[in-house]
Amino acid sequence: MHNYIYVRHQVILDLINTREFQRLRRIKQLGTASLVFHGAEHTRFAHCLGVYEITRQICDNFQRNYPTKVPGDGGWDDHERLTALCAALLHDIGHGPYSHTFEHIFHTDHEAITAEILTSPETEVNQVLRKVSPTFPAEVASVIQKTYPNPQVVQMISSQIDADRMDYLLRDAYYTGTQYGTFDLTRILRVMRPYKDGIAFAMNGMHAVEDYVMSRFQMYQQIYFHPVSRAMEVILDHLLARANYLYQQGKSDESFIPHLLLPFFNHEFDLQDYLYLDDGVLTTYFTHWRQSPDDILADLAHRFLDRKPLKSAVYTTETQPLLTPLRQKIASVGFNTDYYTATDNSYDLPYDDAYDPKMSHPLTQIEIQQPDGSLLELSTVSDLVNALRGKFTGDQRFFFPKEMLNPGDDAPELFQPIYDDFSHYIQNNQLIQPKEH
Amino acid sequence: MHNYIYVRHQVILDLINTREFQRLRRIKQLGTASLVFHGAEHTRFAHCLGVYEITRQICDNFQRNYPTKVPGDGGWDDHERLTALCAALLHDIGHGPYSHTFEHIFHTDHEAITAEILTSPETEVNQVLRKVSPTFPAEVASVIQKTYPNPQVVQMISSQIDADRMDYLLRDAYYTGTQYGTFDLTRILRVMRPYKDGIAFAMNGMHAVEDYVMSRFQMYQQIYFHPVSRAMEVILDHLLARANYLYQQGKSDESFIPHLLLPFFNHEFDLQDYLYLDDGVLTTYFTHWRQSPDDILADLAHRFLDRKPLKSAVYTTETQPLLTPLRQKIASVGFNTDYYTATDNSYDLPYDDAYDPKMSHPLTQIEIQQPDGSLLELSTVSDLVNALRGKFTGDQRFFFPKEMLNPGDDAPELFQPIYDDFSHYIQNNQLIQPKEH
Amino acid sequence: MHNYIYVRHQVILDLINTREFQRLRRIKQLGTASLVFHGAEHTRFAHCLGVYEITRQICDNFQRNYPTKVPGDGGWDDHERLTALCAALLHDIGHGPYSHTFEHIFHTDHEAITAEILTSPETEVNQVLRKVSPTFPAEVASVIQKTYPNPQVVQMISSQIDADRMDYLLRDAYYTGTQYGTFDLTRILRVMRPYKDGIAFAMNGMHAVEDYVMSRFQMYQQIYFHPVSRAMEVILDHLLARANYLYQQGKSDESFIPHLLLPFFNHEFDLQDYLYLDDGVLTTYFTHWRQSPDDILADLAHRFLDRKPLKSAVYTTETQPLLTPLRQKIASVGFNTDYYTATDNSYDLPYDDAYDPKMSHPLTQIEIQQPDGSLLELSTVSDLVNALRGKFTGDQRFFFPKEMLNPGDDAPELFQPIYDDFSHYIQNNQLIQPKEH
Amino acid sequence: MHNYIYVRHQVILDLINTREFQRLRRIKQLGTASLVFHGAEHTRFAHCLGVYEITRQICDNFQRNYPTKVPGDGGWDDHERLTALCAALLHDIGHGPYSHTFEHIFHTDHEAITAEILTSPETEVNQVLRKVSPTFPAEVASVIQKTYPNPQVVQMISSQIDADRMDYLLRDAYYTGTQYGTFDLTRILRVMRPYKDGIAFAMNGMHAVEDYVMSRFQMYQQIYFHPVSRAMEVILDHLLARANYLYQQGKSDESFIPHLLLPFFNHEFDLQDYLYLDDGVLTTYFTHWRQSPDDILADLAHRFLDRKPLKSAVYTTETQPLLTPLRQKIASVGFNTDYYTATDNSYDLPYDDAYDPKMSHPLTQIEIQQPDGSLLELSTVSDLVNALRGKFTGDQRFFFPKEMLNPGDDAPELFQPIYDDFSHYIQNNQLIQPKEH
Repeated sequence: MHNYIYVRHQVILDLINTREFQRLRRIKQLGTASLVFHGAEHTRFAHCLGVYEITRQICDNFQRNYPTKVPGDGGWDDHERLTALCAALLHDIGHGPYSHTFEHIFHTDHEAITAEILTSPETEVNQVLRKVSPTFPAEVASVIQKTYPNPQVVQMISSQIDADRMDYLLRDAYYTGTQYGTFDLTRILRVMRPYKDGIAFAMNGMHAVEDYVMSRFQMYQQIYFHPVSRAMEVILDHLLARANYLYQQGKSDESFIPHLLLPFFNHEFDLQDYLYLDDGVLTTYFTHWRQSPDDILADLAHRFLDRKPLKSAVYTTETQPLLTPLRQKIASVGFNTDYYTATDNSYDLPYDDAYDPKMSHPLTQIEIQQPDGSLLELSTVSDLVNALRGKFTGDQRFFFPKEMLNPGDDAPELFQPIYDDFSHYIQNNQLIQPKEH
Repeated sequence: MHNYIYVRHQVILDLINTREFQRLRRIKQLGTASLVFHGAEHTRFAHCLGVYEITRQICDNFQRNYPTKVPGDGGWDDHERLTALCAALLHDIGHGPYSHTFEHIFHTDHEAITAEILTSPETEVNQVLRKVSPTFPAEVASVIQKTYPNPQVVQMISSQIDADRMDYLLRDAYYTGTQYGTFDLTRILRVMRPYKDGIAFAMNGMHAVEDYVMSRFQMYQQIYFHPVSRAMEVILDHLLARANYLYQQGKSDESFIPHLLLPFFNHEFDLQDYLYLDDGVLTTYFTHWRQSPDDILADLAHRFLDRKPLKSAVYTTETQPLLTPLRQKIASVGFNTDYYTATDNSYDLPYDDAYDPKMSHPLTQIEIQQPDGSLLELSTVSDLVNALRGKFTGDQRFFFPKEMLNPGDDAPELFQPIYDDFSHYIQNNQLIQPKEH
Repeated sequence: MHNYIYVRHQVILDLINTREFQRLRRIKQLGTASLVFHGAEHTRFAHCLGVYEITRQICDNFQRNYPTKVPGDGGWDDHERLTALCAALLHDIGHGPYSHTFEHIFHTDHEAITAEILTSPETEVNQVLRKVSPTFPAEVASVIQKTYPNPQVVQMISSQIDADRMDYLLRDAYYTGTQYGTFDLTRILRVMRPYKDGIAFAMNGMHAVEDYVMSRFQMYQQIYFHPVSRAMEVILDHLLARANYLYQQGKSDESFIPHLLLPFFNHEFDLQDYLYLDDGVLTTYFTHWRQSPDDILADLAHRFLDRKPLKSAVYTTETQPLLTPLRQKIASVGFNTDYYTATDNSYDLPYDDAYDPKMSHPLTQIEIQQPDGSLLELSTVSDLVNALRGKFTGDQRFFFPKEMLNPGDDAPELFQPIYDDFSHYIQNNQLIQPKEH
Repeated sequence: MHNYIYVRHQVILDLINTREFQRLRRIKQLGTASLVFHGAEHTRFAHCLGVYEITRQICDNFQRNYPTKVPGDGGWDDHERLTALCAALLHDIGHGPYSHTFEHIFHTDHEAITAEILTSPETEVNQVLRKVSPTFPAEVASVIQKTYPNPQVVQMISSQIDADRMDYLLRDAYYTGTQYGTFDLTRILRVMRPYKDGIAFAMNGMHAVEDYVMSRFQMYQQIYFHPVSRAMEVILDHLLARANYLYQQGKSDESFIPHLLLPFFNHEFDLQDYLYLDDGVLTTYFTHWRQSPDDILADLAHRFLDRKPLKSAVYTTETQPLLTPLRQKIASVGFNTDYYTATDNSYDLPYDDAYDPKMSHPLTQIEIQQPDGSLLELSTVSDLVNALRGKFTGDQRFFFPKEMLNPGDDAPELFQPIYDDFSHYIQNNQLIQPKEH
């Protein structure tokens, strides 16, 4: 990935060496997907360095080829460089372990925490940023929050084709071992150019941009929406929910206290509490919980640690009514369906040309610059992107215990008719209305 | 590419060592595209070995995992292996130098010549094949001509996703240095399986097949339809046409006789005449022709050898009427428009699900096999392919001398108004109706 | 890596799904080296699968090309396959977190534990293996312990060029992003062949084997012996030693009990205690210890978690006497030299042709097979390997706090002369006898 | 290779577009090695662009990080850039088809011709260079001839680790498909730095330099010294020698005149004659010669075009006396040993630390720069390079017709005892004194 990371600013080196940034070494980029793609153990630390490096290369290109001469001429003002680089490096610093799931259960917000890490005087990150200037921490935070006035800087970090997305697509492709996510980063960087309202791409690089859009689409289909990864996320979610429930009910196992999670159970955590957490803390608690007297907590911890995913089947609006009878069958063999079933949908818009400034985080269009300088929106020049424009793609799935289809040798014979019945509802990994049987 | 080529049959080794096959070392796979992508000097020899190697891997997979047990069960009969391997190796053996253009001028037909090389007793290839059995040469030829009774063998070599296409896409991508054409060959080979009417792909490999379709699309857009490559092909076509014309008119330069082309000028070539030709023979004649007393022949030879492509602009049905006045302008500064202008369109159908058995070479559909064994046509399961289904993509271009836009310092001042006028018809590489000027 | 892992035996699938094997997902392959090469987060789980896959490919090759016909003919007996595959998969299953360091402090032994996991009836691994036959667990263990009678099987897993080494060299090279460790695995596998006393390599693959030896050498020099990685290992070692010391002295912080380490502090751990441990458990305890009232424990935990390596300098037999005065200087500015200094040497023998059966783990020679079947030891045919034969290479280093060279702004002015003095002993990262100053 | 070639100077573009430079598209970089490694069809055109691109990257690095401030300070003076770039681009422009062999037979000298192309007013290259300044052509030529005063510029193009070698090693590795030749170009470029007497490499890049030396060694062993490639070169040499001999003897076939070779047969060629030649011209003549009435000429042409290499065996000082009796046996079955046998030795010095200024082209040492600025010669810091220092490696071989070992079915029975006898002299591809038989 990127061969080498070049660092010329002491500020950047100092930020990397902060406690808050080093913590990202202990948080996997892909969460439960590492349980499906066993090489994908890469961390948010590496991703953040990668986003920094891509941003640095963009700045180098802009400074060399498109420096501003008169204010407002649409060129690049290299005084923005350090702000851009710091925002790139720190854009994900608020992430915690298995962020998406953790936020769902404990109502944390990694974007708010990112801003707090930058602006709270108690963090090492803030101390480093303040050395640049008193207002610098807030400026960097505003880039990440997309309120910074210079749209070139904002779009480098957040747009439909930004340093963040380009790094994670390539990085996730490399570590999952897939060939689908690769695109020609060198060429894209070479055809990027600043203009008054942001960043555009030269016409002769259109195919590289098109290929990026396709790669992004394919990574969603094949990695980010992988059903086994989602199944493990369901288990994680239900495991944390169960632990929380037991605590709220006063039913926790008293012989083991998960010190570092207590502030979250009690809804009174502060920034330092958040910064103690990492992937290892959670799995350490799971190791304890697998010996819990609560059967559900122990079993879910075992399923997560020993990788026993739920099975899943695709359902549609038509087959959705089957979920209720299926849940009943699952309950009737003894599973608590709150903890052993789930539904989840994953949809992505491969490319959206409809820039809607009223959206809270409006997606930017991808602009293609013609030889005479005029701009065209990507889907007007790419047959491929035009074909995909505005089409949602993905699926919705019902998750259930594998035992429903493979009860195992020691399953009670009594339940066999229920298992048989259940299996008629699943064909080719889809829910179906069973034929008479 | 393919790391290593494994050869276990003496027949295959003997075929590779024939004179007709070794000749393919001297014929570039991509013709004039090597003048745009300077690494793309790879030959038809290498491609044919690659198609052989992919076919061998398919046979290995089929034999190991899907051997036939009862005739007609849709499994693979390994007695077909040698036929498949020879057809793979020899499918392109009738190609000559710059085949497409050469055929256009001299009315040769590489498919007919392929069949002749296999079946004519005078070739070394035929002698090797006959050792297998007297009917073997004709059998191998019938696979290439798609009349062989076993559809699995035919589809290995010729279908929308066959060993031929898979090899050339990957090979051309490697040697042009593009990342667009790559797809996951290992995975595709792994999910291929024989069935009664040909070859299908397991559902869990659908994304790899989808990615192959996309790669193919992108290679057409970016390599095979490249405007400079087409411009060089126009020059080559016109150069051969001019030489032919001069010969027919009895106006050839008598001091130099292109011995090896005479049979083609005279429309009375035989197979041996054809087999003497290669890329080097043509360029050697061009080296002589660049000193020809005929200005057009000499200039076109110079343009080809020294890589001076024509310029081009895209035109549409609307702007097509502008071609006539533009040709007049080009003529008025002294160019013979028969030799210095051309139109050319390049269109490709990324994927066609409409299998039409009445077509002379009907394209096969790509079939996806579900877990329960049933087949679905690719575009019914792939959102991406469905979006592209049946859409033609490409462009039509008008080619003209670069001098019309960049007359150079020594252009007669008299013509400057014509050049100026001409340039108003071209904007962003497209023909336009000029605004008043 | 290896594109795909092919599993055909249910036993292998069942082993992968055991609790003991899934635990390897939570143990990094490279330990502290991941703190230097930030992509190198790959786990022992992935490595074990890789060794399995290479072994499977070797078996496929041997079975296809060199099957035994009469006992003792030196061919491959495919009845050995499952034994070889299980040994390959399980050879590292006894590894714990940061094994090397952990063993040093707590006197565990990952090889003994590997054997115990295979043969103890309480493990899931043993239950799976026993299904093959009652003696199978012991047989697989004996392959790993090199006492199995068939030398071909033993050498597949353990020799100077075995599936274990080939996988980790390629894997570590991929994830550290280095190009040095790559070699041509496909070719090596292709030229491997069984003979009566083990495994040899065909003469025409000699250069690939030579390149493997070079790659191994380079990986040692550049990855495994990296001074910063060794510096972090020193900190880890001293951190665990300090925690152990405090516990033995009854000085542990009573507000936090590291439950999962207590059996090791008390020297009375059993197999289950060992299997609870992983990288995350240790770092979770370090997170607690960084708040310890013991300054040394807290500081070392901080240095490990926040990656503050010690500095180091190379010393020789000549400069070794300088260590004592240097340690005194370090002590005189307030560091406890037991915890803040160390010496470490790293030496490797790139290739040893001296097979010494009296060694406890004798290294096998690499044998090259000539066209007429006779064997030659590698260094007799490779100029390169001959040049390196029997030469140790590596260095010995003295580790000390970075503060000795960069005291920082808040260092007491009083100590400045000591720092100045210290710095004269280090030049070009080597200890030197300072010139008069 | 190099992803993209960046050209910012019009001079460079104009040079690429000259007739003399475009001619390099028709001359293969590796000559007969392309007959062994069938992907290795890459041309001198591509190589020259690659050397340009590496040189450009070196200049960029030097200008950014080590610009000269005061004359003589050892920094880089960017006024040298255009000279360096032109020398890089043009360093091989005097190469002709199969240069080495062609020079051997016709006594041409590609280095002298390079100088002539640069400085002769009749070439397009000279016309482009003269536009920079009247003395510029001679300056660029002096860089290539190593007489230019600035050693930094000279060493960029010609030294033990220069842009030329780095490009061809990587390029030849890519196109032959070998993994051996790769090294970490990015890292080497990053650690290169100018000093007063040339170019050095930072200590922290020592391992990358070491790996380059190893790669170079391995490419020689495996690609450049490949016995089949050398065997084809022997045939080419003998084929040209035979044609020359027949011409000198007045025995040429009068029905076909190889116009473009006549000046060379007549020893009175001028620069234009030389520039007409390319690989295709030679193979076109071979196509004619394979029908020659002279049996030897026809047969050698067939062997070259249809790739029928001679066999070879390694011999030593001890076995050299066997060559005479072996040649007699070969003669006695009817081969003219002048044309059907040869000896050839290929030796390379992997690394030489002995800079000897009296050599006509003294090799520069590779200098490693320590943190304090002092220089050390590579072999004093690299155990690996030290082990190889000054050791020649390679072999000497005797080439003979394959028919001596495989006479074929139609060989006269009479000769069988001679063939049998001959075969006893060859074992494991080496000449041996046969045991009694």
